[in-house]
Amino acid sequence: MNLYSLDAWFEKERKNIVEDYFTFLRFSSISADPSFKKEMNNCANWLLDYVKKIGMQVELLPTPTVPVVYAQDLTAGKDKPTLLIYGHYDVQPTDPLEEWENDPFDPKEKDGEIYARGAQDNKGQLWYSLQAIRALYALLGKLPVNVRLCIEGEEEYSSSGLISILPQIKEKLKADGLLVPDVDIVHKDVPAITLGTRGIVAMEIELIGSSTDLHSGLYGGIAFNPNRSLIQMLSQCWEESGKVLIPHFYDDVLPLTEEEKKQFDFTLDPKYYEKQVGISVFGGEKGYQPLEASWTRPTFEVNGIGGGYFGKGFKTIIPAKAIAKFSCRLVPNQDPKRIVSLIRDFLEKNLPNGIKMGFKEYGQGRAVRGSLTSTIAKSASLAYQEVFGKPCKKILSGGSVPVIADILKEIQAEVVMMGMGLNSDNIHAPNEHFGLDRLKKGFLVMAKTVENFGIGK
Amino acid sequence: MNLYSLDAWFEKERKNIVEDYFTFLRFSSISADPSFKKEMNNCANWLLDYVKKIGMQVELLPTPTVPVVYAQDLTAGKDKPTLLIYGHYDVQPTDPLEEWENDPFDPKEKDGEIYARGAQDNKGQLWYSLQAIRALYALLGKLPVNVRLCIEGEEEYSSSGLISILPQIKEKLKADGLLVPDVDIVHKDVPAITLGTRGIVAMEIELIGSSTDLHSGLYGGIAFNPNRSLIQMLSQCWEESGKVLIPHFYDDVLPLTEEEKKQFDFTLDPKYYEKQVGISVFGGEKGYQPLEASWTRPTFEVNGIGGGYFGKGFKTIIPAKAIAKFSCRLVPNQDPKRIVSLIRDFLEKNLPNGIKMGFKEYGQGRAVRGSLTSTIAKSASLAYQEVFGKPCKKILSGGSVPVIADILKEIQAEVVMMGMGLNSDNIHAPNEHFGLDRLKKGFLVMAKTVENFGIGK
Repeated sequence: MNLYSLDAWFEKERKNIVEDYFTFLRFSSISADPSFKKEMNNCANWLLDYVKKIGMQVELLPTPTVPVVYAQDLTAGKDKPTLLIYGHYDVQPTDPLEEWENDPFDPKEKDGEIYARGAQDNKGQLWYSLQAIRALYALLGKLPVNVRLCIEGEEEYSSSGLISILPQIKEKLKADGLLVPDVDIVHKDVPAITLGTRGIVAMEIELIGSSTDLHSGLYGGIAFNPNRSLIQMLSQCWEESGKVLIPHFYDDVLPLTEEEKKQFDFTLDPKYYEKQVGISVFGGEKGYQPLEASWTRPTFEVNGIGGGYFGKGFKTIIPAKAIAKFSCRLVPNQDPKRIVSLIRDFLEKNLPNGIKMGFKEYGQGRAVRGSLTSTIAKSASLAYQEVFGKPCKKILSGGSVPVIADILKEIQAEVVMMGMGLNSDNIHAPNEHFGLDRLKKGFLVMAKTVENFGIGK
Repeated sequence: MNLYSLDAWFEKERKNIVEDYFTFLRFSSISADPSFKKEMNNCANWLLDYVKKIGMQVELLPTPTVPVVYAQDLTAGKDKPTLLIYGHYDVQPTDPLEEWENDPFDPKEKDGEIYARGAQDNKGQLWYSLQAIRALYALLGKLPVNVRLCIEGEEEYSSSGLISILPQIKEKLKADGLLVPDVDIVHKDVPAITLGTRGIVAMEIELIGSSTDLHSGLYGGIAFNPNRSLIQMLSQCWEESGKVLIPHFYDDVLPLTEEEKKQFDFTLDPKYYEKQVGISVFGGEKGYQPLEASWTRPTFEVNGIGGGYFGKGFKTIIPAKAIAKFSCRLVPNQDPKRIVSLIRDFLEKNLPNGIKMGFKEYGQGRAVRGSLTSTIAKSASLAYQEVFGKPCKKILSGGSVPVIADILKEIQAEVVMMGMGLNSDNIHAPNEHFGLDRLKKGFLVMAKTVENFGIGK
């Protein structure tokens, strides 16, 4: 199957592809906020119908939270390998909403880029994957390998629904290769497959000092200000250089092998981040290059702090409480449960007498590291090379797809992460966008990857 | 003029007094938020009409911001002293609104307490003061001293409007005694006059790390998290004991004299704050008793911090920016301008390379300390003793009425602060309230104070 026929099919279908993509983007499928649960269900049902029309056997798998869209076509037969493609139909929250230039759920095109929440992560990347399957049916009459799709609705939150049903549905997920189209290439013209993602743990603390907000004059010097406690407790979590000071945090981190150091190219134009997102100085852990830190080192980041009045004007209060939400990115061999317990113990030890602390865990997941020599890695790498006309780099991602480690525990498949994202796409941020040129290139790469996988190359 | 006739007058007028008090409370005169400017003007005009009907000469004094309600009656003549009463018709913001049990601008009575924003601070205290003047007209036919009223609309924000016109209106404020009914008594049954308030400076910083919120996976380890910078910079402002570490912060603080130590009684039931507002442990500067710290020591309090996502659920971002609003309470001899400059220099020195800082000042004011031997202090003290039937304590307040220092710079009057507040009134917090019993007692004290001042006792 040559690239010209795939290209021609895409152009013939372009109008439908883009229209249906916009429809997909219009669902405000925000998993973090329970008030969007109905939209989540609408989105899942719409997607199920769409995949059914493509020609696959579909099934909506209920979970304790939101449903998983499952599909399979095993007609390639037992002598062909089985490919599992994982994706997610949920998206991140949209605030600060006032920084969006359009309604995040009313997609707009500008200079070939589509602006919407989920335009890239993960609806866009899922979209070209589905189009590749449509094209394979249209051009080959049938799929060249057995294909299973597992599209969940909680990747941006915790994947708790899918994870809770994994043991029951493991037969449905059985595959030789697991393909996760949810990551980035290096540059617009530099292809890459991703051989690992970091793990993650996410937590929240609430510090309570009094039963009500207090007047900062009458109580200033008397009451313990929970903002001060929050600041003083969290400040002890890092040294100034950015190194995490929570005891034993780095205990299980394995140093890179010489082979890994050779495989992964950490060099980057120092002006790159300044141009992309206005960062002029590397702010990560000292002693590491930016990409090395992002790919191979764990972090402790405060994702949100809030305490007292920070609206317009000024309010002279000592707040009753203050909260912080924070998360760690983890590397292979770090155990999420252990990290949560180290952090919790450290914070509890540093809690001042007179302040009460509430502690809450969000989702967690281990890091994933795939093998460079697996068939699926080679198939994808070759597909990128065919489409881009240049060698495919092997990289890691600082991001996390926590559920992948859980799936791999059930099915022991080889894994590769791929994608057409750029780190200028503003995923998880206002004005997320994805290019129609990349939607098409992703389609070509995905179709060729599936074909390559079928002939074991 | 005996207390019985004052009491009888109040009871005869009670229905009108309470009805008009509720009308006054219904104006959402929030000075910190410019969107309430129209309500501020409506409130000022309604108040002007009310004071005019009492029988005083009124004038609405325009300022660059919101108007000042001014009134005078100088018919007592040149051989009588002149009393200036200062108050404010503006109130604090109301959030967190969800913690109010009623609409803060729809007053409700419960067990004799009136719940509304401003019920005490300062509309309630102003209200009994105006009723005292009404009663003096009714019972004596005329006022026993020359009286001026200066009721501004920005005390909770910065008093910038009034301060800017002070040099022009100083003749209107000329008085022998300045009475400020805006503070607390010690307990429900323990009367006190307040001989000093602390000064205040208020500031805001905004730390900017990038041009947009960033994905905490892709950028975690690369970008400088402004939440971390905020935490690390502010944590250096105190030692663990609560002592402020900003260099030279305490330089100008004068120790209490032996006489002052004798005058002010800092003892307090340790269970008091736990019962009132749920504070079980003293959280202020070590080495001082709670009241001593609140009355005589400066503070550095973070009134609000906000950065990233802290709503429902979780958002794995590194925020583009983080803000903190903070204020200091100051004691006599500390210069607000110098304190702001010390803090700003300290923060700028500790700003990490790669983070930009915005700095904003809000209002500021010096501490005030009145003399125990002035006529107005003696008049008020005696009035409390007459109404409560027990000696009147002499206390200080940890709060601030910044404009008082500015007024005193123009008119050199003796000053005393008085009031009927309790620190359980939740001023500046949800469910602010004031008791009708205290409204009446405040009325009696105010009427007697004016009368005592007229006969120089």
